[in-house]
Amino acid sequence: MTTIAKRLEDALGRPVLTDRVSRVAHCRDTWVLSELRDLEDRIPSLPAAVVEAESTEDVVKVLVTCRAARVPVVPYGGGSGVCGGIVAPEGSVVLSTRRMSGLVELDDTSLCACFAAGTNGLEAERRVSECGLTIGNWPQSIELSSVGGWVATRASGQYSTGYGSIEDLLLDLEAVLPDGSVLRTVRTPRASTGPDLRHLFLGSEGTLGVVTQVSFSLRPLPEARRGQAFHFARFHEGLEPIRRLVRDGWRPPVVRLYDAAESKRHFEATCPEERAMLLLLHEGPAAYVDTESAAVSKHCREAGGREADPATVDTWLEHRNRVPGFRGFLEKGIVVDTIEVAATWDRVAQVYDRVTEALRAVPGVLVATSHSSHSYRSGTCLYFTFAARPERREDMEATYRACWQRAMQTVTTLGAGISHHHGIGRVRREALARELGESGVALLRAVKRALDPEDLLNPGALLPEADAPR
Amino acid sequence: MTTIAKRLEDALGRPVLTDRVSRVAHCRDTWVLSELRDLEDRIPSLPAAVVEAESTEDVVKVLVTCRAARVPVVPYGGGSGVCGGIVAPEGSVVLSTRRMSGLVELDDTSLCACFAAGTNGLEAERRVSECGLTIGNWPQSIELSSVGGWVATRASGQYSTGYGSIEDLLLDLEAVLPDGSVLRTVRTPRASTGPDLRHLFLGSEGTLGVVTQVSFSLRPLPEARRGQAFHFARFHEGLEPIRRLVRDGWRPPVVRLYDAAESKRHFEATCPEERAMLLLLHEGPAAYVDTESAAVSKHCREAGGREADPATVDTWLEHRNRVPGFRGFLEKGIVVDTIEVAATWDRVAQVYDRVTEALRAVPGVLVATSHSSHSYRSGTCLYFTFAARPERREDMEATYRACWQRAMQTVTTLGAGISHHHGIGRVRREALARELGESGVALLRAVKRALDPEDLLNPGALLPEADAPR
Repeated sequence: MTTIAKRLEDALGRPVLTDRVSRVAHCRDTWVLSELRDLEDRIPSLPAAVVEAESTEDVVKVLVTCRAARVPVVPYGGGSGVCGGIVAPEGSVVLSTRRMSGLVELDDTSLCACFAAGTNGLEAERRVSECGLTIGNWPQSIELSSVGGWVATRASGQYSTGYGSIEDLLLDLEAVLPDGSVLRTVRTPRASTGPDLRHLFLGSEGTLGVVTQVSFSLRPLPEARRGQAFHFARFHEGLEPIRRLVRDGWRPPVVRLYDAAESKRHFEATCPEERAMLLLLHEGPAAYVDTESAAVSKHCREAGGREADPATVDTWLEHRNRVPGFRGFLEKGIVVDTIEVAATWDRVAQVYDRVTEALRAVPGVLVATSHSSHSYRSGTCLYFTFAARPERREDMEATYRACWQRAMQTVTTLGAGISHHHGIGRVRREALARELGESGVALLRAVKRALDPEDLLNPGALLPEADAPR
Repeated sequence: MTTIAKRLEDALGRPVLTDRVSRVAHCRDTWVLSELRDLEDRIPSLPAAVVEAESTEDVVKVLVTCRAARVPVVPYGGGSGVCGGIVAPEGSVVLSTRRMSGLVELDDTSLCACFAAGTNGLEAERRVSECGLTIGNWPQSIELSSVGGWVATRASGQYSTGYGSIEDLLLDLEAVLPDGSVLRTVRTPRASTGPDLRHLFLGSEGTLGVVTQVSFSLRPLPEARRGQAFHFARFHEGLEPIRRLVRDGWRPPVVRLYDAAESKRHFEATCPEERAMLLLLHEGPAAYVDTESAAVSKHCREAGGREADPATVDTWLEHRNRVPGFRGFLEKGIVVDTIEVAATWDRVAQVYDRVTEALRAVPGVLVATSHSSHSYRSGTCLYFTFAARPERREDMEATYRACWQRAMQTVTTLGAGISHHHGIGRVRREALARELGESGVALLRAVKRALDPEDLLNPGALLPEADAPR
């Protein structure tokens, strides 16, 4: 047993996990490059130990012990990230929140539910739905994700057009800072009490602290729900009614427009060949759903949309989280990934065109498609999918990196945002400077240095490597 | 002329203001204690110079020059703050953004308007309304405020229940950091690219940087608009329909419930004696306004509300920003102020009761009333007004401080939030530790120290004085 494992056992008064299976199971998230390395038996590094914290006090003990020993700590939620946010350095300690699970408090009057950070996302949603309530955060990874991970990665769910993203749903949080101090924000509907400290942890990807408890602002389960589907001659034509309906203030929780290739892939039964499918889900009081769906229909028809079978939405609802794993593709020599970006409406069409072109220009690329998945008055999220089979199997990583590099380059050149909701991890780390600017990266580094001067919390994630604080 | 004024003139290549009138005019905001000191000829300190920056480059020059000379800089927008956010230290430099004014860019497609930070709030709103658009941020001080000040103070307007507060409206910003570097955030509808750096400046009250440009996410001017008014036997009874209508997802931009004393004060013509008046303003597509107002009526009637003349809303709209200045009261030996706090629904009634009781218990207090002004699924803002005439005129400041101290104590004891939208300044500085906790204050200090190690940006505001970085 390593020294740090022994020290942690002394501090916690119980064993920590040091077996190889546990260490391998916690050394990474669901980043496709990590899966590829796994498949090729090229695991780059393994942690020395995995600690399953059972309480905030445990988290404090782990951070204090590791800081004293100058050992890096990698917070681990559901492990469902897809950007390489977790690649545990050799000899580090992985701090899993899995056993910090469950509802802490439910307040139906103030529509608030507080959970331990390791609570599984779907379990959290189910728990409040038993009381007729909903969190309304439906990331595709909901079954694998943790509620603390939602905060740490700035998650956004499939219902965000109506219900908002995690920063709109989070009421208060508890986090342990790198020095072991515990921050607990006040539960208040809104505050003007200096910079909103919750935002240091929203999107921190485990680099600034460990989120241990989160409270969400809930909604009642809707009285009514209605699906609508329309198809358009082109993807670009389908964007316009989205822009207009959000502009008017309508807010269907789900608004998803698929390009022709994705429409064929997902909705062959109900979408005519070469058409772009738009799915909408309306929720709320019955009178609201009636009013909104009528207004939305009008927008869609005016934009040349034709009504499709609304059962398409049911199909989507049923299958929406069933995505094939990366492994099956990798075994066939195909590397697959998704790249979600965000753009203002004035450039959405251009981002769609240029990014799909850029991806298709990479040798070996078989598929480059997209859909619009989360919309705003100001713009939308374009969620690209690509698949590539390079001639030589050993070029898979290089091909993958070329796809990402060209996509990120194109997006930043067009002045769009490099990530809507997946985060930075390692895959976007080098693109971050183009998003934040040099002074933005310097600012983020200054904050990191102020909180974690020895760069012990999830080193290597988020911040670009060059000139990293350590 | 002082050394720093000379150095600034050299750096800028033009004169700066050093006359006493300019220095007095910029030494403070609209905090009632500053007004009282003014009246009593007790101005505590004066800046050495006032610089009216004309560009971001000017702001850089001022910050770099002052940092080299170790002279404090106090950013100054509209001067409309009411918390003592501006009390320029003796010999400091006040950096006014007044001449950095005007629309930089308007994008009707992406519903975005970019303004220089010193643009007057009402002028900004008028400018976009000429194009059929609205920012929708209506602080009571809109005629005096600057759009950069909205961001720096975490403003929230009278329409926030429907349209959100400044953090919901801000798309991107430019700010100059204490070291003179310029941060420019990317214009994207939403991002998961690390902690949201905009939130370091939202609510920073001039302590972390100088906001130089801001872009807002706009809305179209509404197709329809309808006012509704109801009155209730008690303030507490009127809270329930607000909670329920927001819970259901309705979002009238304006939802304001006044207690009986304030109802009498403002709406004597339409509100029966001893009743609490609720005003609502619905905006949006005509069909939406119809649906929402019908649903809201139902909630209000079910809660025992009786319909009042909707012209009451027009009266409010017309007079809403006409508040008597502090000076007239002060001259009569009466000290008046407002204290806005926020609480979750489970404790709103208790906060109302206990804070008004606490204020009334202060010797000399004549009036302690409240209204609910901005509502959320999770709770509401209670906006208290108090007036006190101590027996001896020289006790005005002590009486004022006693009112604040008791109100803040009561609010934090009940677990509510100490400020909804006015901010900290100096009046809430000592209460901040009770809101953020010791670790929250330590965290804020660490960030401050990282960005502004010599505490040169607006020293004395926001952070509690004890153990301040300098």
